[in-house]
Amino acid sequence: MKTSVCIIGGGPSGLMLSQLLHLQGIETVVLERQSREYVLSRIRAGVLEHGFAELMREAQCGERMDREGEIHEGFIIAHNGKQSRVDLHKYSGGSSVVVYGQTELTRDLYEARDRMNGIVIHNAEDVQPHDLTGKPYVTYRQGDEIVRIDCDYVIGADGFHGVSRKSIPKNVLKEYEKVYPFGWLGVLSRTKPVSPELIYARHERGFALCSLRSQVLSRYYVQVPLSDSVEDWSDERFWEELKRRLPEDVAGRLITGPSIEKSIAPLRSFVAEPMRYGNLFLAGDAAHIVPPTGARGLNSAASDIYYLYHALVDHYKKGDDNGLDNYSAKALARVWKAQRFSWWMTTMLHTFPDSLPYDQKLQQTDLDYLFSSEAAQRSLAENYVGLPF
Amino acid sequence: MKTSVCIIGGGPSGLMLSQLLHLQGIETVVLERQSREYVLSRIRAGVLEHGFAELMREAQCGERMDREGEIHEGFIIAHNGKQSRVDLHKYSGGSSVVVYGQTELTRDLYEARDRMNGIVIHNAEDVQPHDLTGKPYVTYRQGDEIVRIDCDYVIGADGFHGVSRKSIPKNVLKEYEKVYPFGWLGVLSRTKPVSPELIYARHERGFALCSLRSQVLSRYYVQVPLSDSVEDWSDERFWEELKRRLPEDVAGRLITGPSIEKSIAPLRSFVAEPMRYGNLFLAGDAAHIVPPTGARGLNSAASDIYYLYHALVDHYKKGDDNGLDNYSAKALARVWKAQRFSWWMTTMLHTFPDSLPYDQKLQQTDLDYLFSSEAAQRSLAENYVGLPF
Repeated sequence: MKTSVCIIGGGPSGLMLSQLLHLQGIETVVLERQSREYVLSRIRAGVLEHGFAELMREAQCGERMDREGEIHEGFIIAHNGKQSRVDLHKYSGGSSVVVYGQTELTRDLYEARDRMNGIVIHNAEDVQPHDLTGKPYVTYRQGDEIVRIDCDYVIGADGFHGVSRKSIPKNVLKEYEKVYPFGWLGVLSRTKPVSPELIYARHERGFALCSLRSQVLSRYYVQVPLSDSVEDWSDERFWEELKRRLPEDVAGRLITGPSIEKSIAPLRSFVAEPMRYGNLFLAGDAAHIVPPTGARGLNSAASDIYYLYHALVDHYKKGDDNGLDNYSAKALARVWKAQRFSWWMTTMLHTFPDSLPYDQKLQQTDLDYLFSSEAAQRSLAENYVGLPF
Repeated sequence: MKTSVCIIGGGPSGLMLSQLLHLQGIETVVLERQSREYVLSRIRAGVLEHGFAELMREAQCGERMDREGEIHEGFIIAHNGKQSRVDLHKYSGGSSVVVYGQTELTRDLYEARDRMNGIVIHNAEDVQPHDLTGKPYVTYRQGDEIVRIDCDYVIGADGFHGVSRKSIPKNVLKEYEKVYPFGWLGVLSRTKPVSPELIYARHERGFALCSLRSQVLSRYYVQVPLSDSVEDWSDERFWEELKRRLPEDVAGRLITGPSIEKSIAPLRSFVAEPMRYGNLFLAGDAAHIVPPTGARGLNSAASDIYYLYHALVDHYKKGDDNGLDNYSAKALARVWKAQRFSWWMTTMLHTFPDSLPYDQKLQQTDLDYLFSSEAAQRSLAENYVGLPF
């Protein structure tokens, strides 16, 4: 098989890029290791920044998102007995975020690829890119058959554990990592969300978050030690702990129900540099991971896709390789800013087992300063809705 | 002896408060352990925030400061081969800082106290406050004589090592502390400053700062390990190390000369709570210490003095004790914000012996974000010129 751009990974980044390039007449093949059913059953992020929503529209996949997604113009931080609202709309100059589950968004992208007869190959096993600094090709196995795809470029959008980053020689790649001493225990329930806007709660027992996917689907989290497992947390224990960490009036109106998904995710910050090796370009989680505080996960992939999309269009339509040549530096500059923001939100809101009493006071002061300063709220807002591409 | 307010400590905070109260007809006595010559030989901070300069004027001590001090409307941060300017004037809405040595300022305050026949007792040994929750008095020894001063209130403005804080029972006082694994080696030299504005330099070998006291008096610093002593640093070694940490063009025009003062100061963050115990009120370094990065030292005393001054005037003139009752909470709210800012400036600009490569990238990202964001520069500027009282 031959194509222009072979995209490894059928998550939102890979599908989005495939769709955008297809609309510009550039051929792609998407290889996904899992089945479509599996991909569409994964519960992931739910807050899309302004720029990501714009990309969905540009990819002609924004219709359902615009109909069913919820515009959020602010969120709440509960701290020290107070509930302070961050007015994203006011302080970002009119911008906002869209609450729309990544699962829904991925479904929309699949349907768009189907409509355009885009090639998305599922259950592709043993995917392996080859000859990345020469004339690249990608092989995979389907049953007993080994298939080879020749291409101009390989896009590694196959996540943190994918093969793409691992194909870059160790002496080329530099990895930066920070592991946090806790995880998020998340519960999804078919209940009315306790608050129309997200509530981030700082509490001495640990961080908690009230999030949502829709007006009938709630997503709640509590910070837990890494040693905990899902089995330690009955639904009852989870709801009790969540209530203890929320302001009394919020806890009082919380509607609980059986969990339809429950999982623990460790928190990690990770960046791999560079994001290009020969004709391989990394995008999204394959190159960088953020802790979920501040909702940068899917969003820090958005600029990668945006830059790659424009770089590939420039290459194929104008023979201009500047975008490709500058991709890594440009993408990393924004990636690191998202890392900084996620680190800051995480550090400000969680309890750390070995923190000094001084550091705990600093955390509270960070919040006190934030809500006393228009400049600080502007800074938070511009990061939360997404820095310009 | 009897007075209304007995002020322990004849540094800038104590003298300023004494002067301000005297102008309102409120009697004070200032007790200073050292001689005036000793106090006036101490080399200390040199950057006064807007609010501190205003207090000097209100105390009728601002004339020489306004004549000889230099208005600084910005400063430079050198990082990663770049020199980026923070435009304080623009981003603080027209505010600025005054470069005027603490030594000069203290001299002006002494002269004002002299002119008004203010009582400032030097060489007061074994100062001890008594009966702080009842009818307070302070004793001290002068030669063989023990002197007793009865008063309404005691102000503890006697610095970190002073007796005032130590007079508060341990079960009342809570102390918060953070020690940094490095110090600042400072050199004062009678040379023309290398830059009209301060240069804060982040460098892989460690932080450096080009500061000044006047156009003929330079103050330079380099970050050193705590294990270093002044004897390890000849003038020659100091100048060489400083040059290595500065941008090439700055190093190239640096005028060196013999040091007229050379010392190493460890960096420490410290806050004691509450700042009131009975009729004792702590102010300045007696209650809180910041690392010098960001020039908050003298400035975070300014709001203490401002609040105390107004609280005492309200008490004596209107019989209104609200200011005194709220002093600790109000002062601490601003103190912690200065702590936050100093911690942030310190963390962003210094090298930490055990930092992860990830953390080093975050430091650089903090600076990259700062200079890409108007909101972030506004936030820095409002803290650097001093948050509102």
